[in-house]
Amino acid sequence: MSEPLSLWSHTPARQAVLDFVTAVTAPGSPDFVPPAERIATFDNDGTLWLEKPLYIQLQHGLRAIGKAAAEKPELRDRQPFKAVYERDMAWLGKAAADYAKGDPSGVFILVSGLTEVLEGVTVEAFEADVLEFLTNTQDARFKAPYKQLTYKPMVELVHYLQGNGFQVYITSGGGRDFMRAVCEEIYTIPRSMVIGSSVTFQYGEDAQGVAQVVRTKEIEQPIDDGPGKPPHIHRAIGRRPIMAAGNSDGDIHMLKYARGHKGLSLALLVHHDDAEREYAYDGGTEKALQLAAQKGWIVVSMKNDWMTVFV
Amino acid sequence: MSEPLSLWSHTPARQAVLDFVTAVTAPGSPDFVPPAERIATFDNDGTLWLEKPLYIQLQHGLRAIGKAAAEKPELRDRQPFKAVYERDMAWLGKAAADYAKGDPSGVFILVSGLTEVLEGVTVEAFEADVLEFLTNTQDARFKAPYKQLTYKPMVELVHYLQGNGFQVYITSGGGRDFMRAVCEEIYTIPRSMVIGSSVTFQYGEDAQGVAQVVRTKEIEQPIDDGPGKPPHIHRAIGRRPIMAAGNSDGDIHMLKYARGHKGLSLALLVHHDDAEREYAYDGGTEKALQLAAQKGWIVVSMKNDWMTVFV
Repeated sequence: MSEPLSLWSHTPARQAVLDFVTAVTAPGSPDFVPPAERIATFDNDGTLWLEKPLYIQLQHGLRAIGKAAAEKPELRDRQPFKAVYERDMAWLGKAAADYAKGDPSGVFILVSGLTEVLEGVTVEAFEADVLEFLTNTQDARFKAPYKQLTYKPMVELVHYLQGNGFQVYITSGGGRDFMRAVCEEIYTIPRSMVIGSSVTFQYGEDAQGVAQVVRTKEIEQPIDDGPGKPPHIHRAIGRRPIMAAGNSDGDIHMLKYARGHKGLSLALLVHHDDAEREYAYDGGTEKALQLAAQKGWIVVSMKNDWMTVFV
Repeated sequence: MSEPLSLWSHTPARQAVLDFVTAVTAPGSPDFVPPAERIATFDNDGTLWLEKPLYIQLQHGLRAIGKAAAEKPELRDRQPFKAVYERDMAWLGKAAADYAKGDPSGVFILVSGLTEVLEGVTVEAFEADVLEFLTNTQDARFKAPYKQLTYKPMVELVHYLQGNGFQVYITSGGGRDFMRAVCEEIYTIPRSMVIGSSVTFQYGEDAQGVAQVVRTKEIEQPIDDGPGKPPHIHRAIGRRPIMAAGNSDGDIHMLKYARGHKGLSLALLVHHDDAEREYAYDGGTEKALQLAAQKGWIVVSMKNDWMTVFV
């Protein structure tokens, strides 16, 4: 095996990760953790892949809403279909700006438009549509399909943990089934190990009598964000993680939950401070950065701790 | 390796399982399924372990309700605390009899009493209590702790599938966290692979500020039974099973979902027809037995297909 974490600069952040993994895996170590308990949970948007200028899933949602509005003129007299169909950037920009300021009402209208047009779709059909989108849609700035815009040092970290007997889960505030379309291909994480927000589902049978699971338009509560993350983690895994990684205030409760493990634990916060290679922003991360300083969470500077971002 | 399924008689049921596993695992087989897609889902009560004369989990619930009523006299003037505290077998027997006849109202009162007394309990404390109960409480007829009353041919089948690259999940109509207390010990199934019904959870912090996941008293809907099973399976796994095993009408939708797999699939129904070694009953299984005959599901006769039951 080549040097571990070769895409990481030789800084204290990298060393802290290496020391932690050695301590919990080395036979005879006082902090040894058996493989069944080596659970790590990683946020997705902004932690494992790009989340600016808009969440990638929101781009997919806009496409689905636009398709529906193009096919069904009767939708176009109400939001969000009207704004998306007319490319009303004032309305869409306000929804995004309000969201960044803590008012999600416009984004909720978008999301409910999306869940409405996807109601009754089978889980297989949804996944095929997402896979096509992530494979064929390019990010405007980075000129690459979305599914390639993962942070390569973080993907390397996932593989490093997997190679050391960790079970690595995704815990996305965004859509669980959205990430399942590509998790195996881009992260080597099985889709059963993706936790996230979701609509609820119903059993149905198609015209041939074949059993199907189809989407409803109702969003399951709580979503997998903030204080909702630890309950989602418990539901899916049944164990407390010993390591967690995030990048925003929505990850605070998950990071605290991992740090509540009785043995050694690690909390890692990705800091977007690299305007040149990615973006530099602290909006929505203020509290997490404060807590990291107080509680000894590892803050990973994209600029200083990573040799590369997307390549 | 010794002969596979050595606890099974040499009957068509055993042969059907062996043929299926060979067909989906043999390299070059036209029905070959890659390991990542070899998903099998097993019901628990009555499929993997004893469910008579009462669900084992109900016995635990009665103990927890009784403890609470003993500690808090103010609970004893209402149901289910009054009946459990007074050992009112008329009330309890009616609840059980009504349930068997399709009226769950009495059992609902018991369950809501249980979720009430467990509200605010951490997931770790609940698990410790269940483990103690299943280890130390004996079944009256079989004179063995509940956790030993698994059907050994079915446990052997789980191991046989695991040994052939299958990922075997439990999909219990009963409590997910109840089974997680022993799933690794009695089935070699990791707790992340246990799907089931549950209360919802909340994030909290204890007096020391340590993050905790605690139980609410609200039951998550739908429960993991009947048409609720395929949505639960999708949520937890993200793939359609290629094999499913159950024993009652509550498993019909899951069995149909597995049989909806595009390639080869197997549905297996355990039939309780062995009054001597276990119990003989068809109540609550009438529709499943009919469908099995129509659709070619494998009916496993406990009496004729198994060499042993509990030993």
